[in-house]
Amino acid sequence: AAPAAVASVEAGEDGLHVRFADGAEHRFDACWLRDNCKCERCMSQSGQKHDRTILPGSRALDMLNCEVLDDGETVTIAWRDHHGEEVEYEASWLRRFAYSHGAIEDEQASRAASFYHAERTSSKTFLPEVNFADVMASDAGVWDWVSRLEKDGFCMIRETPVEEGTVKKVANLVGSCSHAIYGETFDVKATPKPINIAYSDKALEPHMDLAYYESPPGVQFLHCLRFDEGVKGGDSTLIDAHAVAEEFKLRHPEHFHILSTVPATFQKDHVDREFPVRMFYQRPHIHTNYLGEVTACFWAPPFEGPLRVREDFVEPYYRAYHAFRTLLMSKEMWDKYGFLFRLRPGDLITFNNRRMLHGRNAFTSETGARHLQGCYLDADTFLNKFRVMSTTMSQDVDILGCDERFGTSSHR
Amino acid sequence: AAPAAVASVEAGEDGLHVRFADGAEHRFDACWLRDNCKCERCMSQSGQKHDRTILPGSRALDMLNCEVLDDGETVTIAWRDHHGEEVEYEASWLRRFAYSHGAIEDEQASRAASFYHAERTSSKTFLPEVNFADVMASDAGVWDWVSRLEKDGFCMIRETPVEEGTVKKVANLVGSCSHAIYGETFDVKATPKPINIAYSDKALEPHMDLAYYESPPGVQFLHCLRFDEGVKGGDSTLIDAHAVAEEFKLRHPEHFHILSTVPATFQKDHVDREFPVRMFYQRPHIHTNYLGEVTACFWAPPFEGPLRVREDFVEPYYRAYHAFRTLLMSKEMWDKYGFLFRLRPGDLITFNNRRMLHGRNAFTSETGARHLQGCYLDADTFLNKFRVMSTTMSQDVDILGCDERFGTSSHR
Repeated sequence: AAPAAVASVEAGEDGLHVRFADGAEHRFDACWLRDNCKCERCMSQSGQKHDRTILPGSRALDMLNCEVLDDGETVTIAWRDHHGEEVEYEASWLRRFAYSHGAIEDEQASRAASFYHAERTSSKTFLPEVNFADVMASDAGVWDWVSRLEKDGFCMIRETPVEEGTVKKVANLVGSCSHAIYGETFDVKATPKPINIAYSDKALEPHMDLAYYESPPGVQFLHCLRFDEGVKGGDSTLIDAHAVAEEFKLRHPEHFHILSTVPATFQKDHVDREFPVRMFYQRPHIHTNYLGEVTACFWAPPFEGPLRVREDFVEPYYRAYHAFRTLLMSKEMWDKYGFLFRLRPGDLITFNNRRMLHGRNAFTSETGARHLQGCYLDADTFLNKFRVMSTTMSQDVDILGCDERFGTSSHR
Repeated sequence: AAPAAVASVEAGEDGLHVRFADGAEHRFDACWLRDNCKCERCMSQSGQKHDRTILPGSRALDMLNCEVLDDGETVTIAWRDHHGEEVEYEASWLRRFAYSHGAIEDEQASRAASFYHAERTSSKTFLPEVNFADVMASDAGVWDWVSRLEKDGFCMIRETPVEEGTVKKVANLVGSCSHAIYGETFDVKATPKPINIAYSDKALEPHMDLAYYESPPGVQFLHCLRFDEGVKGGDSTLIDAHAVAEEFKLRHPEHFHILSTVPATFQKDHVDREFPVRMFYQRPHIHTNYLGEVTACFWAPPFEGPLRVREDFVEPYYRAYHAFRTLLMSKEMWDKYGFLFRLRPGDLITFNNRRMLHGRNAFTSETGARHLQGCYLDADTFLNKFRVMSTTMSQDVDILGCDERFGTSSHR
């Protein structure tokens, strides 16, 4: 039998006890099982529940009988009151969504362990990459790219056509582009009187894009269309902000507490513009889940507006902010979690805009041209594709938890 | 002088003390003032900051001189180290963003007071409405609609053309439609084998749409194209979930604590579909700000998936859930915060999808047709329009705080 097959079940006062073939044991509350009944009277074909009026301890939750069928692949329960029908539960589904006996804590611990990749911290040569032809050739190629991006936070696509619009073509393998505030695709090159400092030849400190949205882009694409050899500087930078924030927590717990509770102000306040913008969003720089783990880090210095919090938090905020920036810019952090590379025409860098802060060194715009074309995908869109593909590719991923380290505010 | 004009300023060890013409006094930390300098060396024309490396107590924050100019409309500060230039601050801007002496608490208290509208709780005849012709005629008409929607949570637009596409035309006065999971516009009518129970003739309990997105729609539009007199039932319902959640806090503090801390699972898990979807988002049903006020309430029973939290939270969650639903469905709450009305062809109901849960009574689809056309706007898009219009219409709104009661997760 498969490890997730069920060996035996027993109904008790505190719910259903399930022993799996590999020895793992899990308990499921009766109200939880009843709430997750997938029979056609409880759930529509499209997966919508008809009734959630489950009250723990009610008589309807009595289990009259429970059995293991299909070589352990199915568990059935006969409820006292359920349209007179037995209810079937898939063993693999029960195993996937088990929550007792520390299942959630174990999963979070293993996620935390895989999060700090040994190869990333030991070698600067680590750069996850795939080939454009492979990505376009098959679902397996798309999955290879998408799953690296999810796990490592970024992935380079090499040997793409040096053609405008390529960036959108690749993004559309996942879904529709989002956040068209600068257009569905945008062009990063040095221009006079830029409406954004990105469109100059100045250096950009590591930052997240569009942190003033409730749901900032999940993935950013930057496709190199031109980068003349005469251009000095202009190297791209990436750094894992979640990893730096975890280090910050260990080194400066008081500052960490401030940055994870006091809401900073993110803004785009530019009325004198073709499409006037007055966007503000107040959120702490660092988000944590209920175990205190870093699940999101919002950082965009040029787009941080007037702090508006109780006065006793103002000076502590600025001290904590300064301490985080100092750590973020330190050689030690860049050696461990940072990446520096010069894009070549045909390179398409794709990265998690929530987790990997990006930037660039200043460059000489009078000695040649540097032209990147970019676009965004929603975090929702990317994670949906990741989950759907994991299903069609029969990959066992943590359907509910995969977003926790992605940088969404889920689980808060 | 205007109330927001400055009467006098004084620099102290703890920052700048500002006395306004109406007697109000506020203190501004030196680091905060320096961080918010708008001179062209500190901020680009498009409003981006060049430097946020402000450390409280540093010598650069010494104020050598400060003055009041322009009949109190401007304050200038000469910093010890600032490119040798004096820095100007607008008095009205300082007043708007003042944070000391309880300014934030006062603003939140007044927002809470205006939130429970006396006319709403005392009379069922309260139904904010505007006329389509007025909305289309001028910015003043748009502002009348947009500001009612922001304040009251919903607004009816009467006498619209009974034509498909009207809903999009009105929405586009604010911005582009969002959340096209069911199409940029969608049609709500009874169909056989519906992919969503909304597309049947069944009753719908009060719910929010698309709660499984990181940023669910901020505004929903439902335009009545047809509602035959022969159709029995089908009345529309709206209820203010924030108001109910505030009552819940007073009556059931333990349950409130559970629903505002334990993350529920919102899902759309429907792979067997033209556009396969596996979306999950875990968040507590109720969000509060740091004062414990309700700022968001997520409620969508048919789209609530497997709870996945530590086992000791499972039964408490179901008990709290049951208690909230019981209160939400009570006659008392509907008398105070609920609305029931039958749409007529040409009516276009617009409502805050975060704050006002919507639903409908069952109807008889065999005795006539009922056809609504709908679409969504992002909360970001709506609030941006609200802030931009408040500026062009010279309305004094709380630029940073206006989203706090809108139902976003800002300020958490």
